[in-house]
Amino acid sequence: MANQNQDLQLDDQGRLRHFLTIDGLGRDLLTEILDTAESFASLPGRPVKKVPLLRGKIITNLFFENSTRTRTTFELAAKLLSADVINFNVSVSATSKGETLLDTLRNLEAMHTDMFVVRHAQSGAAHFIAGQAAPGVSVVNAGDGQHAHPTQAMLDMFTIRKHKGDFTPLRVAIVGDVLHSRVARSQILALNTLGVTEVRVIGPRTLLPGEARAMGVHVYHNLEDGVRDVDVVIMLRLQNERMKGALLPSQHEYFQLYGLTDERLENARPDAIVMHPGPINRGVEMDSAVADGPRSVILQQVSYGIAIRMAVMSMAMQVRTAAASKEEAPA
Amino acid sequence: MANQNQDLQLDDQGRLRHFLTIDGLGRDLLTEILDTAESFASLPGRPVKKVPLLRGKIITNLFFENSTRTRTTFELAAKLLSADVINFNVSVSATSKGETLLDTLRNLEAMHTDMFVVRHAQSGAAHFIAGQAAPGVSVVNAGDGQHAHPTQAMLDMFTIRKHKGDFTPLRVAIVGDVLHSRVARSQILALNTLGVTEVRVIGPRTLLPGEARAMGVHVYHNLEDGVRDVDVVIMLRLQNERMKGALLPSQHEYFQLYGLTDERLENARPDAIVMHPGPINRGVEMDSAVADGPRSVILQQVSYGIAIRMAVMSMAMQVRTAAASKEEAPA
Amino acid sequence: MANQNQDLQLDDQGRLRHFLTIDGLGRDLLTEILDTAESFASLPGRPVKKVPLLRGKIITNLFFENSTRTRTTFELAAKLLSADVINFNVSVSATSKGETLLDTLRNLEAMHTDMFVVRHAQSGAAHFIAGQAAPGVSVVNAGDGQHAHPTQAMLDMFTIRKHKGDFTPLRVAIVGDVLHSRVARSQILALNTLGVTEVRVIGPRTLLPGEARAMGVHVYHNLEDGVRDVDVVIMLRLQNERMKGALLPSQHEYFQLYGLTDERLENARPDAIVMHPGPINRGVEMDSAVADGPRSVILQQVSYGIAIRMAVMSMAMQVRTAAASKEEAPA
Repeated sequence: MANQNQDLQLDDQGRLRHFLTIDGLGRDLLTEILDTAESFASLPGRPVKKVPLLRGKIITNLFFENSTRTRTTFELAAKLLSADVINFNVSVSATSKGETLLDTLRNLEAMHTDMFVVRHAQSGAAHFIAGQAAPGVSVVNAGDGQHAHPTQAMLDMFTIRKHKGDFTPLRVAIVGDVLHSRVARSQILALNTLGVTEVRVIGPRTLLPGEARAMGVHVYHNLEDGVRDVDVVIMLRLQNERMKGALLPSQHEYFQLYGLTDERLENARPDAIVMHPGPINRGVEMDSAVADGPRSVILQQVSYGIAIRMAVMSMAMQVRTAAASKEEAPA
Repeated sequence: MANQNQDLQLDDQGRLRHFLTIDGLGRDLLTEILDTAESFASLPGRPVKKVPLLRGKIITNLFFENSTRTRTTFELAAKLLSADVINFNVSVSATSKGETLLDTLRNLEAMHTDMFVVRHAQSGAAHFIAGQAAPGVSVVNAGDGQHAHPTQAMLDMFTIRKHKGDFTPLRVAIVGDVLHSRVARSQILALNTLGVTEVRVIGPRTLLPGEARAMGVHVYHNLEDGVRDVDVVIMLRLQNERMKGALLPSQHEYFQLYGLTDERLENARPDAIVMHPGPINRGVEMDSAVADGPRSVILQQVSYGIAIRMAVMSMAMQVRTAAASKEEAPA
Repeated sequence: MANQNQDLQLDDQGRLRHFLTIDGLGRDLLTEILDTAESFASLPGRPVKKVPLLRGKIITNLFFENSTRTRTTFELAAKLLSADVINFNVSVSATSKGETLLDTLRNLEAMHTDMFVVRHAQSGAAHFIAGQAAPGVSVVNAGDGQHAHPTQAMLDMFTIRKHKGDFTPLRVAIVGDVLHSRVARSQILALNTLGVTEVRVIGPRTLLPGEARAMGVHVYHNLEDGVRDVDVVIMLRLQNERMKGALLPSQHEYFQLYGLTDERLENARPDAIVMHPGPINRGVEMDSAVADGPRSVILQQVSYGIAIRMAVMSMAMQVRTAAASKEEAPA
């Protein structure tokens, strides 16, 4: 898979064309994303500021799965790069008229936007679209099924680097429904690529992937043990729909076993930070005391998410622009 | 309440930071809003024209209550000021995933937009958000519950000044469901602050507030008496949901008692103008002959609403910009 | 009707003010639209590119009928012309509060946008709005009932000219539900105005208009006969709702009689092209082998649609701008 992802995501000089998954991307490229985001995030006076990098470009938000919040962060990032944004809500569009997905895609391509930001309930959807896309079009994965959510993982890495500086000595625990989480999958890949000392996953057997050890992580079923001496605790969001199956007994019982409290956090390092992709289920994944406490960096994650999305979009688009510049007329 | 509103709405030099309510704002500030709107509205060639005042700023429409028309006027005003606009439809967003309102707000703040335009079914919502907002963020109230709708009141004042010039000698009648109307509440405050001779409210006992006299208005239950010698008649919109309770018998009976007709208007001054916040229920609040007649300035109200919203947005944002300019990098 | 359309659509120098229907427009004007689109479509480096022609203008998409795809193409075209776009979704707006259509329109006008792009289920809606619009406002018809869809017809003409060069020698067949199709009506008018040798309509008696011969077309009920020696085959989309009535037996039976296959296409000229307005019902209107085959130019139609919409919008707006420029202040 790695080579295939590399081929699809990178151009022949190893630069980012599409951003679909962490899989197949090297430490240098992830670091370049973080550094580029830093250049947007560290503008003085305010966290991010409008820049003219993508003036004249059209970015289409192609959301097959409703997610106002994620769509808004990409829309904001695009507008801060001076791009124009089209929101294409696929659920109310031609697909409901009986058109096939592939016909919809070909039609959208024919409208020639410069970038698609894709969210889809099916794993592999963004890869599929990138494989079909015209040479001048970039695709950014905004979450596909249970497969990947690479911009979320990169904003998490950005938040960690902001607080901890160097990745090398870190121990990171990921808590909750790792099995069904595209966020966790992308985080584990990113953390290992960036060379942390140890990645742990913590949760009940029913919510941890069978191949966890093959992914280079250590498995814990007990939260107190799992967070011992870690520098970073990443809580996953518990999807309510999991409760409906036999996988989990109740929110209350889940909190008893895997809910993060200040008491349980005492096992972690004194300067440990607590992260969550949002939105939080207070009293399920964690206590409000933790969510609003001094170790929580949850709102910084949201904030850094804009800079990371600006970084990924501008990097992918600049390669396109560079490639096309020879044949383009002056604006 | 006045001092508290002043503290929240004005900076230490008395300039507008948030625009939440007329309450606590002085005549000078209301006049400054009207004058600023005049500068946008009186551009030659067309009523308003795009200006670069808010280029690079991000304005988020945060509508917890659906209102396409009001949202559109704010969106238009923002775009005519060259700002970028994000429409955040809260009903389909994270709150439906179990997130608390406060978490949603904190998340939106973390995305660092420069201004929130807030519409909410609950009184006080815009104040609450302004109280929570980061120092660099302005909040404009686009209607909160039965409390306030200050931009509507200011566009009404603008319309009155356009036609009557001086506020001092005017008698103004507000007709209808004053009790439940955020528009009426804001109008009464603005008219009294701008120093009109007399404000009257006209309606059945069940639809007039008990504290009407304390608000400095004269109460009439008879329309013919109430409009005698007035310069301005402001009709309120009758909410159909009021019909469901015992407050009102039927639309037909309401029109018999409080519907405005040309005949009833004969009691008013010959040059009286007729206003309505829209949308009109023809044959309920007024005859079509009145709505489309020579005294009606209803469409001018809509038109002036863009200029008023441009004025409020640019005033609140320029204070922000001035405050932040010392620490900001050049664009 | 022609003179009336001419009066409404053209200014006193014969230039486009509104674009409502092909009816009443001469060959020169249609050719000017095609040439203007060509200037956008033939920019080197990419099919269309952002140009500053409509910077500072506000275009409102006024869609009374849901059509994400058509709305998106107009939004794209407007943004590529550097205009600002307001999407006004009428179904959720004030009309649901009991406001009349005329009041809604007057209100939208009072917000002074520069152009309305109108889609409505009722024939004549765009004409009605253009007749009511303020002097400074242009209206573009994005489809009204079963009456007209002139931008679709013009993008079809553009596609034909790209492939065939000269219209004069061409034979064109339109296949399917011509009776209910606003697309077909506009295509027939455009083809005849541009002077093709022959226009044919092909379909069952129940789906062909009684006045077909009066429209200057030849009628065929047999597909094999109808496509003989034609240069262009235009397939219409079959509306599923037609199946519900007695007009048509079943999708399967329709395909047996009027579905386009490679075999049936052998009767057409060897270099014939196949068109469809999209979205395609594969296996109903045509075989996938045809839709994806070498004669299909269906995706080019979508692509050219952006350029055509840019052409129509900029032509109509430039007349406005020229007319208004004497009284306008510098930006």
